[in-house]
Amino acid sequence: MGTYRQRLRQVTAERGNLCVGIDPHPGVLAAWGLPATASGLEQCARGIIEALGDRVAVFKPQSAFFEAHGSAGVAVLERVLADIRAAGALSIVDAKRGDIGSTMAAYAAAYLTDGSPLAGDALTVSPYLGFGSLLPAFEAAVASDRGVYVLARTSNPEGGQVQLALGREGSVVQEIIDAARAFNASARTRAIGLVVGGTHASLGCDVSEFNGSILVPGIGAQGGDVADLPHLFGAAFEQVLPMVGRAIIGAGPGVPEMRERVRAFTAH
Amino acid sequence: MGTYRQRLRQVTAERGNLCVGIDPHPGVLAAWGLPATASGLEQCARGIIEALGDRVAVFKPQSAFFEAHGSAGVAVLERVLADIRAAGALSIVDAKRGDIGSTMAAYAAAYLTDGSPLAGDALTVSPYLGFGSLLPAFEAAVASDRGVYVLARTSNPEGGQVQLALGREGSVVQEIIDAARAFNASARTRAIGLVVGGTHASLGCDVSEFNGSILVPGIGAQGGDVADLPHLFGAAFEQVLPMVGRAIIGAGPGVPEMRERVRAFTAH
Repeated sequence: MGTYRQRLRQVTAERGNLCVGIDPHPGVLAAWGLPATASGLEQCARGIIEALGDRVAVFKPQSAFFEAHGSAGVAVLERVLADIRAAGALSIVDAKRGDIGSTMAAYAAAYLTDGSPLAGDALTVSPYLGFGSLLPAFEAAVASDRGVYVLARTSNPEGGQVQLALGREGSVVQEIIDAARAFNASARTRAIGLVVGGTHASLGCDVSEFNGSILVPGIGAQGGDVADLPHLFGAAFEQVLPMVGRAIIGAGPGVPEMRERVRAFTAH
Repeated sequence: MGTYRQRLRQVTAERGNLCVGIDPHPGVLAAWGLPATASGLEQCARGIIEALGDRVAVFKPQSAFFEAHGSAGVAVLERVLADIRAAGALSIVDAKRGDIGSTMAAYAAAYLTDGSPLAGDALTVSPYLGFGSLLPAFEAAVASDRGVYVLARTSNPEGGQVQLALGREGSVVQEIIDAARAFNASARTRAIGLVVGGTHASLGCDVSEFNGSILVPGIGAQGGDVADLPHLFGAAFEQVLPMVGRAIIGAGPGVPEMRERVRAFTAH
């Protein structure tokens, strides 16, 4: 099946490079006329795949909205991941996990290891404990041909407090970008991607030489515009995977309405 | 039942101020003679509460080791949290969640809201997206008389890359400590605690005026020593909750052996 990046290149060549966020929060469930229960969650999340699974390259289920329904919600996430796989699309589990040692290895076992029901094609991780603390996830991703997206510059206004602070070699975000690039250059697969928000007037960091996938949230409801991304990302624009959540799934539950939104975002 | 800090003060007055980490990783399961399955996980994790639930003040189950067994493992975590409650102890769910807006609110719904099967007495959170991004968790904790422990200075050597970087007002870790103190001072309850590792020769941050609970991992297997904590934390030592994981549960499955380890750590 190839590496994560090979699979990503193939499916985006066929379907366009859009990532649809599966964010079944209470407001979306209400708009779909569904109860705020594990059953309502399941109808919404699996309904999105049913409507869009044959035409969207990548889906990003947000773990928080499944965890909010307890282990029954997490079981729904497992079924959603199986649906995405069956539809020939890729999945990025947005869980922003981050820990150390054997604990980080346990997250890697859950989300980046063949046979685990929670394993998708990629996982988002959070580097507050240092880039190096995430090594067990990077190694598991390389070994299983999966991907890991490290939070670098997030889309929210509060992120700069940590991400733009000055470390030994430059800003925190730049140290993470450079360390990710160095890992990718030395590993068998370019397993590490970055999360860089599309909401900023300028990124405040240099991704021009980055050698992996760049997941860009913040498009649509958060105010980012797909049309601005070539300018914002420059030479790295080819690696960008724009992520749209509410602006697509909020048009549901009508299938034609959601498909029309996907068409509009893919046309750019 | 009072606020989280009132409950914490009461139970530590009765039982001593030790927090036992429930870290059922594959090595612990093997040492206990249990299979690396959801059933083995359940026997280990609930066996710890059965052995120590009447004499330990606080338990900290590590979510990663439950997630590694998929939704079946998360269902075990729900039962473990119910066991801890039934034993009259407090629970800190160590999940290090961190996100923004309605996503952070969904994590708060899962872990900090009455009626959710995954809600314990407190939750650990990670501030890579900025201290302010965690506000939905802080508000939920105040509203439900629960606690939130924000990662500040972690016990691992890689943590300094982010935590000691320089922000506008000082280091990242100091900005987080100061913001947590300001929130506690203005809120109805001092819901915010800190995670500060006990492995460092010096903390590299000032917690002397902090006004909440301080969870201190890294004692035992990671090299920290309970006897060093008064010197390391100075005036804030009274707020310290030392956390020991493997050095206690690794002595199992024998009940007398685990109880003896608890006695030894509590005697300090």
